[in-house]
Amino acid sequence: MRDRLFDEGIQILSRDGLAGVTIGRLAAAADCSKSGLFAHFKSKQQLQIELLDAAAAMARAHVVMPIEALPSGLPRLSELVNRWLGWSRRAGLAGGCPVAAALFELDDLDGPVREHVMALESEWRCLLLALVEDAIAEGHFWQGVDSEQISWELCGIYLAHHASSRFLRDKTAGERAHIAVAALFNRAAQSTASNHIRKATI
Amino acid sequence: MRDRLFDEGIQILSRDGLAGVTIGRLAAAADCSKSGLFAHFKSKQQLQIELLDAAAAMARAHVVMPIEALPSGLPRLSELVNRWLGWSRRAGLAGGCPVAAALFELDDLDGPVREHVMALESEWRCLLLALVEDAIAEGHFWQGVDSEQISWELCGIYLAHHASSRFLRDKTAGERAHIAVAALFNRAAQSTASNHIRKATI
Repeated sequence: MRDRLFDEGIQILSRDGLAGVTIGRLAAAADCSKSGLFAHFKSKQQLQIELLDAAAAMARAHVVMPIEALPSGLPRLSELVNRWLGWSRRAGLAGGCPVAAALFELDDLDGPVREHVMALESEWRCLLLALVEDAIAEGHFWQGVDSEQISWELCGIYLAHHASSRFLRDKTAGERAHIAVAALFNRAAQSTASNHIRKATI
Repeated sequence: MRDRLFDEGIQILSRDGLAGVTIGRLAAAADCSKSGLFAHFKSKQQLQIELLDAAAAMARAHVVMPIEALPSGLPRLSELVNRWLGWSRRAGLAGGCPVAAALFELDDLDGPVREHVMALESEWRCLLLALVEDAIAEGHFWQGVDSEQISWELCGIYLAHHASSRFLRDKTAGERAHIAVAALFNRAAQSTASNHIRKATI
């Protein structure tokens, strides 16, 4: 019962965003009583938070866990990025990445759901940053590279790929994203001016 | 009256997204009757489409019109990108860019509002592409550069800046975006491998 509720809820979240996730709608989709669901989740916010956590656990299983055995540095980072781009479709979600959508849906709102998305997004960005720093430590990227800048730009490529593959339904999105990632990694490997602008201006 | 309705409606759209824009909510915010608004807009979709158009007109006034007198090529493109990053706040909107948010809100839905956002986004991407092609024609970018790839990556930097300045409330977002744009333009000016991977693989 709990599994079916989560399966239905994650699909609604992925397709319609947080605004689509209400206890009434999930009760109708899972064919159970609203009062039973209230007893279980206490509030709409709690339901939304638990579904976001379930989506994040799916992302970890599809994107993060398979890379752990790979050699540290660029091989591990490259495979993570390959698995991250378009992960929601491969994980069987009906729509896009629930956290990416929430970054735009909740940007001007406050409250516990926003705080929870902030924690999930921060955790993800910390992982990306650690993998970029491993690539520096392994000598795959230049020692002076600004690791936060590289992970920030990777997030931009992910969002551009999400918008262009899912909203624009552009079949070249995957190829564009891979060219952008290759160019970024190529830049990170070199001691170019654009990699130390930040350090020079601080 | 019409002006006040649009002013209120655009603020709701910017802050709460398309899901927040309903005839009932706008009637309450603008202190007028729901039936009067129905007579004016006919449907919620029509209201959403007219507000999106009004937001796009604001973007044109703040971002596009001021660059028209600048020299063609890189000066015009650079100034457009400077004005595009964070334009909604400078235009007086209470929240983020309504079109960027709609790319994530409507990605898995169909209907006239999605089609309208698609038309607005395509028009924007055509403008970006034309400015990149002018920079090639002026000799500011390398002749062999893939102009669609450069404009695609600019859209990624815009989305990364939106998510990091608005959702994460990161004060370094502007600096990160400018470093990313400078590195992209620097790459576009050079005959590097990453600028002709696409042409070579077709």
